[in-house]
Amino acid sequence: MHAVLRMCCPDRAGIVAELSNFIYRNSGNIVHLDQHVDAQANVFFARIEWVLEDFLIARDGIEDAARHLVRPFDPTFFSLDFTDRRPRVAIFVTKESHCLYDLLVRHDSDELQVDIPLIVSNHDTLRGAAEKFGIAFHHVPIFPETKAAQEAEQVRLLKEQDVDTVVLARYMQVLGGTFLDGFAGSVINIHHSFLPAFVGAKPYQQAYERGVKIIGATSHYVTPDLDQGPIIGQDVIHVSHRDSIEDFIRQGKDLEKVVLARAVWHHVRHRVLTYNNKTVLF
Amino acid sequence: MHAVLRMCCPDRAGIVAELSNFIYRNSGNIVHLDQHVDAQANVFFARIEWVLEDFLIARDGIEDAARHLVRPFDPTFFSLDFTDRRPRVAIFVTKESHCLYDLLVRHDSDELQVDIPLIVSNHDTLRGAAEKFGIAFHHVPIFPETKAAQEAEQVRLLKEQDVDTVVLARYMQVLGGTFLDGFAGSVINIHHSFLPAFVGAKPYQQAYERGVKIIGATSHYVTPDLDQGPIIGQDVIHVSHRDSIEDFIRQGKDLEKVVLARAVWHHVRHRVLTYNNKTVLF
Amino acid sequence: MHAVLRMCCPDRAGIVAELSNFIYRNSGNIVHLDQHVDAQANVFFARIEWVLEDFLIARDGIEDAARHLVRPFDPTFFSLDFTDRRPRVAIFVTKESHCLYDLLVRHDSDELQVDIPLIVSNHDTLRGAAEKFGIAFHHVPIFPETKAAQEAEQVRLLKEQDVDTVVLARYMQVLGGTFLDGFAGSVINIHHSFLPAFVGAKPYQQAYERGVKIIGATSHYVTPDLDQGPIIGQDVIHVSHRDSIEDFIRQGKDLEKVVLARAVWHHVRHRVLTYNNKTVLF
Amino acid sequence: MHAVLRMCCPDRAGIVAELSNFIYRNSGNIVHLDQHVDAQANVFFARIEWVLEDFLIARDGIEDAARHLVRPFDPTFFSLDFTDRRPRVAIFVTKESHCLYDLLVRHDSDELQVDIPLIVSNHDTLRGAAEKFGIAFHHVPIFPETKAAQEAEQVRLLKEQDVDTVVLARYMQVLGGTFLDGFAGSVINIHHSFLPAFVGAKPYQQAYERGVKIIGATSHYVTPDLDQGPIIGQDVIHVSHRDSIEDFIRQGKDLEKVVLARAVWHHVRHRVLTYNNKTVLF
Repeated sequence: MHAVLRMCCPDRAGIVAELSNFIYRNSGNIVHLDQHVDAQANVFFARIEWVLEDFLIARDGIEDAARHLVRPFDPTFFSLDFTDRRPRVAIFVTKESHCLYDLLVRHDSDELQVDIPLIVSNHDTLRGAAEKFGIAFHHVPIFPETKAAQEAEQVRLLKEQDVDTVVLARYMQVLGGTFLDGFAGSVINIHHSFLPAFVGAKPYQQAYERGVKIIGATSHYVTPDLDQGPIIGQDVIHVSHRDSIEDFIRQGKDLEKVVLARAVWHHVRHRVLTYNNKTVLF
Repeated sequence: MHAVLRMCCPDRAGIVAELSNFIYRNSGNIVHLDQHVDAQANVFFARIEWVLEDFLIARDGIEDAARHLVRPFDPTFFSLDFTDRRPRVAIFVTKESHCLYDLLVRHDSDELQVDIPLIVSNHDTLRGAAEKFGIAFHHVPIFPETKAAQEAEQVRLLKEQDVDTVVLARYMQVLGGTFLDGFAGSVINIHHSFLPAFVGAKPYQQAYERGVKIIGATSHYVTPDLDQGPIIGQDVIHVSHRDSIEDFIRQGKDLEKVVLARAVWHHVRHRVLTYNNKTVLF
Repeated sequence: MHAVLRMCCPDRAGIVAELSNFIYRNSGNIVHLDQHVDAQANVFFARIEWVLEDFLIARDGIEDAARHLVRPFDPTFFSLDFTDRRPRVAIFVTKESHCLYDLLVRHDSDELQVDIPLIVSNHDTLRGAAEKFGIAFHHVPIFPETKAAQEAEQVRLLKEQDVDTVVLARYMQVLGGTFLDGFAGSVINIHHSFLPAFVGAKPYQQAYERGVKIIGATSHYVTPDLDQGPIIGQDVIHVSHRDSIEDFIRQGKDLEKVVLARAVWHHVRHRVLTYNNKTVLF
Repeated sequence: MHAVLRMCCPDRAGIVAELSNFIYRNSGNIVHLDQHVDAQANVFFARIEWVLEDFLIARDGIEDAARHLVRPFDPTFFSLDFTDRRPRVAIFVTKESHCLYDLLVRHDSDELQVDIPLIVSNHDTLRGAAEKFGIAFHHVPIFPETKAAQEAEQVRLLKEQDVDTVVLARYMQVLGGTFLDGFAGSVINIHHSFLPAFVGAKPYQQAYERGVKIIGATSHYVTPDLDQGPIIGQDVIHVSHRDSIEDFIRQGKDLEKVVLARAVWHHVRHRVLTYNNKTVLF
């Protein structure tokens, strides 16, 4: 079992020495150390993962000890996680099944190493998919006049299940500020274009009309600005004049599935750090 | 030696039969036949290349005969080219040398099978590169007040050399309407982003600030609307938080070179058809 | 509803004219015509798809008429298919679930437009996956001494269900000659390397030991020579020294799924032609 | 100006702490720290780059101090380089010009930040290319009976120019053991296939005959076993049945150029470590 420390702070000399000494003198063995400096922004980032067996500080004291250690560096972000605690993930969907099935199948083989206590949808369409894999399905319809109340109900369901990560697997609703406040930095979306191209609705249609020769998909953290949050991952495929919009959609689905799954994988492995509306992926 | 017929027209039954019969009954042997129907726009496209040895129509009569043949189909585009006529290409540059050198080196090994009678630049910076490869270099400075006159001079130089294709190899000036009127559909530009993302100036800077995980390059025909013309080709590479803007620029140059060279290759092989601000690449 | 004619024959002048005339004079409207000449091997290939509404030849007479038409060209391959007949596909698996689930989920949304009457496995491990999607699952264990008899049983099951295409979705048995004789050119396999590198067992292990910087997957038709059949499709991803064998396997699964699904899609759309142990993909 | 320390040694706790403390207590500021553990082989790798301004140890004492520091870890590789010393690179070519020109053009814009004191060739074909860019060109013909003597002459030329890195830019001769002994780990080759597929002569021809759907290029360090050395980088492009061998060659050249240039870039930036016939690329 490992501990994972992530932090970012203003850059200065000696941070890595301080962190690595802390682990070494407490008999930890580092298995991964990733460090990055954004020279332009003068920000230091680190992710350190070490073996806890033989570590001299008791598990429930590690976070406090580490926070104390890094306080002099004025961290703007700090997190201490343990790899034996399985993240609890909720999946939000509407009617498109491909990303949902993709996540459920990965979950079935425990590739993601998470718990998925529930699926939430504004339609009842995908209940059958959820049931095939034995995951609770909650139909929470959204109408303009009830949106605030229904989002409160969504939050209640998530809190009840102790959810820490929300994955929008082609969820066709814009999340309100109240919802996002409760899960800031923990809501992952898949957008079916290579952002920032083709923001908003019907990106494949937009791509087709522009005559592009590549189409893409982008995973990103959700912020109040539509499709503007920090990008986690992107991938593309080449298309040609022979591809119709239907071909874009069919082939694009394969991109969406993989790009979303990779983003979830990095997030739940505690491999992402966010700053200045960008991500660092270790 | 081959003839290449390209056309597009409203789709209807029998066009391929008519075209292939024409060639067959005149003892031509088809080496490539590419056909495409845009079902949404109801447009038919074809490119047919055939061997002229033994062809029963004399070379200088083929274009008229073919035009006569396709007239009933009301073509919106028609072109008849011969593969033994080398396209005459002018390269426009400013200060960046990588795309220019790339084209000159390809020209040196005759990969492109074109003539390059001249290079035009609004700066004198790249004269040495042109001279290394023995190509005439014309310095035509552009200032706002002299732009119209200088573009007229550019057109004069191109006409004098019987140029049919203009390649903007990182030419940092917007071409005026008069210039474009004279070379409509024959001016190819390279833009250093995956369009339509990051139109305009400093696309790598824009990409860096948005925190994208892929960067790209796009070749397109130039139209009066900046970076909005029909896309010929695109390619991308993956980047990460470790890449600085300088790394984007350095790695992006390799994309720009290849994407531009491929576009020129397709254009001078008569493999591109344009419609609705898109391209068909055969 | 469309007819699809595929053929290959020695190249000579006039073939396209003959085929397109045949369709035109019988009031068919061509929606796709793809033609290719392998100049080195002097072989002509064509795939023509046309609308049957208004076609003057009755459906059950088309194949004979077309065969008669092409006889003078001495075709080495000829096939006439109708797009309203759904191919009948059997999936063979062993214990790995990812390719099976991928195909089942695509089948669930009818992306592939095929019938899947049965799944065959030499182990009982994946029965649950089959049952989730309501597909019959047949456990046919294979031991060296019973292999011939068990393959005969497999063939019996397939014939009973009128299967025309067999997809090996990580089936870990070498198929015998008797089996292959009955389904020549109709058995598609996925191999988890970019063939011809890393033939045989444990390709990810082989790739890891060689220290490659890309890993791949290859779909191909199965022939009696292990991993030597005509390649249908390939794709790769970049890896680095940070990727362990487990990372190769995890990321490789996403390649395998997509490369296999694309191969099935092309095959059941009648878009593949095979010659000289290669494929033409229209 | 920076110092770059690279090392690998058996893995154990405390190495990063020791290295980072050393730099910190001597007033160095780390700009890049990359660390990797091959858990399977139990090997630790590190590359640390730090600013030398204000460093308390004089430049000519740093290497000894660092060697002394890491001795207890029993390093199997150790290197200390300074970024203000420009590597001295010799390019070996035969008749193909594309990789040579590519390197010369990059050198012309100082992208690689190296000195190129000479080009060596077993033919006189590319003398003109060298002269265009003002680099000394040495024609050292190789015949079986004179090979040993001529390789001795090559080594003499390289030693005379204090060359530390040899780049085989499509050099069509196998280097002998004597030559390789003198430049072990410093000879970079480009092979025009995705190794280990298509070792040896005419890889594009081999690829065409096998009917692959991707072609590739591989940069690697040269060892006495042909095309078997540690792989530095690889890249691929998709091809189709429409591509002839000539198309493979033409498109493959663009791969070769970029894959070779990237390998040189990493090597001369001191970003590569070699072990077990593999590379770690930081």
